Amino acid sequence: MFPLTSQRMPEKMSEERAALDELFASSVLAHIALIVHDRPVVFPTAYAVINNRLVIHGSTGSQWMRAIEGQEVTVEITKLDAIVIARSTFESSVNYRSAMLFGRFNAVANDEKSALLDALSDRLIPRRSSEVRPSLKKELAATTVLAMPIEQWSLRVSEGWAEDGDEDIAGDSWGGVVTFGPPSATIAATPDLREGIPVPASVLELAGAPGRII
Amino acid sequence: MFPLTSQRMPEKMSEERAALDELFASSVLAHIALIVHDRPVVFPTAYAVINNRLVIHGSTGSQWMRAIEGQEVTVEITKLDAIVIARSTFESSVNYRSAMLFGRFNAVANDEKSALLDALSDRLIPRRSSEVRPSLKKELAATTVLAMPIEQWSLRVSEGWAEDGDEDIAGDSWGGVVTFGPPSATIAATPDLREGIPVPASVLELAGAPGRII
Repeated sequence: MFPLTSQRMPEKMSEERAALDELFASSVLAHIALIVHDRPVVFPTAYAVINNRLVIHGSTGSQWMRAIEGQEVTVEITKLDAIVIARSTFESSVNYRSAMLFGRFNAVANDEKSALLDALSDRLIPRRSSEVRPSLKKELAATTVLAMPIEQWSLRVSEGWAEDGDEDIAGDSWGGVVTFGPPSATIAATPDLREGIPVPASVLELAGAPGRII
Repeated sequence: MFPLTSQRMPEKMSEERAALDELFASSVLAHIALIVHDRPVVFPTAYAVINNRLVIHGSTGSQWMRAIEGQEVTVEITKLDAIVIARSTFESSVNYRSAMLFGRFNAVANDEKSALLDALSDRLIPRRSSEVRPSLKKELAATTVLAMPIEQWSLRVSEGWAEDGDEDIAGDSWGGVVTFGPPSATIAATPDLREGIPVPASVLELAGAPGRII
């Protein structure tokens, strides 16, 4: 149970890794489980995959960040793709992709911090880091960046149609799938924005492809 | 750290509970953390709130279901609402609502099972249980239904605009928010659907308001 490592055929592994990367490309929200004071806890955070590491960040004052550093964790990333409507409630289900990754997050070296934070920012807001001033020294000092190598993981994919029995198929009940596409996205300028500053390319790109994020 | 219980003023509590209920009404995906063989694990599952209990279900053969029954768990439910674009990467962030609930899931009584499974199904596919045949005895026997009372929880809400410093506000950089709305939803009939069976009201309702689900 709970496959913490997998024995995979090389071909299958590369297919699975491609599916994992596709999941990374379509969601920025990760759920990190750890043990704190003998209790299981889980918290959500934005992440980016950079050079085969899962990278997260937070304030140096963040108790979560301090709690997970160096600890054994499980990271779960899930995308709900569709609701499968069978001819019965019993056979109805959801289509989803869900990854679990196992390992430990460690603080990155100080000289890596700035580049990783820019990459993380650019994952959420494409190329935003090139539009704004560089981070200040005091900002970098106030930020913890943690990274976990992507080594041990498993992926579950549920897709396709319901498997109704012959009797239900012969009946009058409908069956099918409701598939979710990307969300809508609306742009609003901050109330204290000075006049004449146009919406930047980064924001137009983000709002044009919100399915990359959620 | 990690407020497992909260001391709240009555008024504040009722406001918070309303916000929690709003979160329940806008997402069906929960992330359940538990300890298995001394390791922290977390898995995603659909849930419904029924009579102030968090209700989940699965196959009686599911190792997850068996593992969580009676164990101390943390349930996390999160909705990512928006990306906050500041005039710097440092002040940029996300707006979200995230609940953590603490407790134990226990199996529900056999005579409750059918009604809870119908309610769970109706949460995902509105009123679907009234459109299809009742669950068979063997289907009920093959299904585990677990419930956790909603007693201990905390809610974090991040909303609003970035808090840029005066120097950045006076500069040329844009600031604002990209807010995500409900996803698009498309309906597809299963390939083996008999001719002449129309899309039912439940599916039209689901596809018309996918923001209730994700």
